[in-house]
Amino acid sequence: MYQISLGLIGVGTMGGALALNLAEHGYDLSLYNLDPRTIDVLIARAGDLAPRLQKTESVTELVASMTPPRAIMLLVPAGGPVDASIDALMPHLDPGDTIIDGGNSDFRDTQARTAKLEAAGLQYLGVGVSGGEDGARHGPSMMVGGSQQVWQNLQSVFEAIAADFEGTPCVAHLGPDGAGHFVKTVHNGIEYADMQIIAEIYGLLRDGEAQSPGQISLLFGRWNQGDLNSYLVEITAGALAAIDPETGKPVVDVIVDQAGQKGTGRWTVIEAIRMGQSASIIEAAVGSRVVSSERAVRQMAERVLREQDMPVVGFDEDDLEAAFRVARVLAYAQGFRILKAASDEFGWGLDFAKIAEIWRAGCIIRSALLDDISDAFRSELPQGRLVLSDHFAALLKGNVAALRRVVSTAVLAGIPVPALSSAVSWYDEISKARGTTNLIQAQRDIFGAHGFRRSDKDGDFHGLWS
Amino acid sequence: MYQISLGLIGVGTMGGALALNLAEHGYDLSLYNLDPRTIDVLIARAGDLAPRLQKTESVTELVASMTPPRAIMLLVPAGGPVDASIDALMPHLDPGDTIIDGGNSDFRDTQARTAKLEAAGLQYLGVGVSGGEDGARHGPSMMVGGSQQVWQNLQSVFEAIAADFEGTPCVAHLGPDGAGHFVKTVHNGIEYADMQIIAEIYGLLRDGEAQSPGQISLLFGRWNQGDLNSYLVEITAGALAAIDPETGKPVVDVIVDQAGQKGTGRWTVIEAIRMGQSASIIEAAVGSRVVSSERAVRQMAERVLREQDMPVVGFDEDDLEAAFRVARVLAYAQGFRILKAASDEFGWGLDFAKIAEIWRAGCIIRSALLDDISDAFRSELPQGRLVLSDHFAALLKGNVAALRRVVSTAVLAGIPVPALSSAVSWYDEISKARGTTNLIQAQRDIFGAHGFRRSDKDGDFHGLWS
Repeated sequence: MYQISLGLIGVGTMGGALALNLAEHGYDLSLYNLDPRTIDVLIARAGDLAPRLQKTESVTELVASMTPPRAIMLLVPAGGPVDASIDALMPHLDPGDTIIDGGNSDFRDTQARTAKLEAAGLQYLGVGVSGGEDGARHGPSMMVGGSQQVWQNLQSVFEAIAADFEGTPCVAHLGPDGAGHFVKTVHNGIEYADMQIIAEIYGLLRDGEAQSPGQISLLFGRWNQGDLNSYLVEITAGALAAIDPETGKPVVDVIVDQAGQKGTGRWTVIEAIRMGQSASIIEAAVGSRVVSSERAVRQMAERVLREQDMPVVGFDEDDLEAAFRVARVLAYAQGFRILKAASDEFGWGLDFAKIAEIWRAGCIIRSALLDDISDAFRSELPQGRLVLSDHFAALLKGNVAALRRVVSTAVLAGIPVPALSSAVSWYDEISKARGTTNLIQAQRDIFGAHGFRRSDKDGDFHGLWS
Repeated sequence: MYQISLGLIGVGTMGGALALNLAEHGYDLSLYNLDPRTIDVLIARAGDLAPRLQKTESVTELVASMTPPRAIMLLVPAGGPVDASIDALMPHLDPGDTIIDGGNSDFRDTQARTAKLEAAGLQYLGVGVSGGEDGARHGPSMMVGGSQQVWQNLQSVFEAIAADFEGTPCVAHLGPDGAGHFVKTVHNGIEYADMQIIAEIYGLLRDGEAQSPGQISLLFGRWNQGDLNSYLVEITAGALAAIDPETGKPVVDVIVDQAGQKGTGRWTVIEAIRMGQSASIIEAAVGSRVVSSERAVRQMAERVLREQDMPVVGFDEDDLEAAFRVARVLAYAQGFRILKAASDEFGWGLDFAKIAEIWRAGCIIRSALLDDISDAFRSELPQGRLVLSDHFAALLKGNVAALRRVVSTAVLAGIPVPALSSAVSWYDEISKARGTTNLIQAQRDIFGAHGFRRSDKDGDFHGLWS
């Protein structure tokens, strides 16, 4: 058996949780953190697992405490800190040692770092780790990019600590270098979209029907019992039910409506657009967080721009459930199209069914839906499209009218539904055999002599515009 | 007076038109093109202007035919051809000579090229040229980036050939290096959005009311007499009225609904998202062109996904006009926000009123609206926002209800309106003092311990989630 010595740099929320997870599965590991007291705190609360965790005070000491072949996992912020850790480690490592980046790195950085380490006789894995602190502690979903050889060396370690879905570990080697981080990026993009759809439905009930958080919590709780079952729906029900001990109010009513974002949502949209893919539902989610940050503008704009007498409206709960169902499937479909485009561009040969399967436990977007997605990818997909599979075509066609009613009512009532309306727009565009870009081609030919194709014969043509 | 010798590389549609424009204004210039026959054709149809155009057969000959200080304009495709031209020119140029890139280059390339040429004692201007072939021939709108000194050397040339708006030439030095190309990129992004909005309105009348292209042409023709007056509305009326001589059908009915794109629309969205700005209406336009390219999918999806009995609908013409008015202003507002963000990031000090003014003639998005935008930027803007100016706030508030009705009806009828619905979504989000990202912050704190802010006190907090 291949024996590997494990180390970990960056003992924050995720790093600490992963360290305990590894220790619990029988692995000894050396730890290093910029602030060594964080390691003391971790070891103090590690209980029986403490003997497996060795504190070191420098990168040199970390490496010296391990025996080759080493595998050192980085759980440090994406960007500069990853490069700084690599640069600090490299002079001390031996050929065959591996650095594993478990953060939310830009996949292009991972590609460059893999090349750099391999040129120095070292190994690199870029691993997307999803599931938050709880996932990291008790079993995350992990998306691995790197060489087949390095994966084989470490496969047993990853499988030991990964989330378990009915006996299958939620980790897979998805492709070379940046493949794992790219898939994680798109995972997060889908997560953004899913969260935004949920937030919009909450807004419809809050602002359209003056429902309390407690009432809305009950609805999400019920939905979580059906086909909308998912971790995000579950925690939404929990979030809406929680009461602030200081004020006695629902917690969501004291939280400022200003959402942060770290980059993966934006990256998903940027890469999608660069590759000529639609990411409109994910973009709606990214854009909403952007607008949320501009509170002063929103407060002034409400006074200046809002119409006075917007209609009072109501939303049918079954319609909302069906709308959610459709929009969520479309967001996933956009995400998987983005994965397909990247797989083609970079020659990764991504296994989409496998990706859906390792997302079924451990990660933030785990949901019952992923079983259906995996099944669809394992069958023959018409035009390679998830939305055209028998299962999803029937689901979409059977539920989209409700999405129409919800969006239509929300738009009349002035309640923002950017993700839901992007979903219906995309649905209507992809299912329209004859669109309207014929007019755009005419305009482009008039002002730029770009030419157009004709429906009645082959070739490039120009109009005789007056 | 500073005497400069002019040359031009790339005698295609745009290059040839610019060459004639320069000649007509009394400038002699040397021409070089990969295929020299293109120059012969140009000179043959130049008439009285022919003596001002000198054909050269190589870059070396081009440079030799000119006397320092030289200014050589490139009208070659963006990307590699620009670099190849620069590399071919550089060994032959003298200190103080200038290369001008008049193509649709990525502003980041322009920044890098400027630095490269300045390091070699040469000068560089990156100039966005808008107006298509006709604009280039009779007066384009030009957005200049580069050093103040180089601009001053060439200002009189640019002003001579630029479009004229009531006595003011539509050209300006907007900032250093990439500033001109960035502004041109966003110009094109706005153009994409404007064209998409028009295409959607065409689709509503075509698919919702079964109106003929001729009928729709009359409507756009009428709108062009009012505040919606613009070049794009004018050519839309013309495009819809044109008859195909071969078939006797309206030309738009024989054009395939598959639109091309060259990059500037995508770049606008990518840069916007990178800088944390909303570009949802422009993104809708880019996304529509993407979907338009997937005809086989659309044809199959129409059979599989389309509901059978969609309602027959009608659209009030005044509502459509008002919806157009609102969506267009919002698209421009997004574009100017993107310019603001880039100006801040790169320290360009862009003059937004001036930009609106040089777009009033010569370019594709020239319109009556730009006068109002310029006026708004010359007054004090609340929160720096165009949409909050007295003029535009009143316009938006007075017309947005019509946009709501149009989008609401279109969504129920299954007619795609991605740009119009993105516009209404953005309007509703920016004018909502309390959004729904408080729920998103709760979710993020539950799964990622990201923390949140409270509305009742300062600081970062975590919830006591069960």
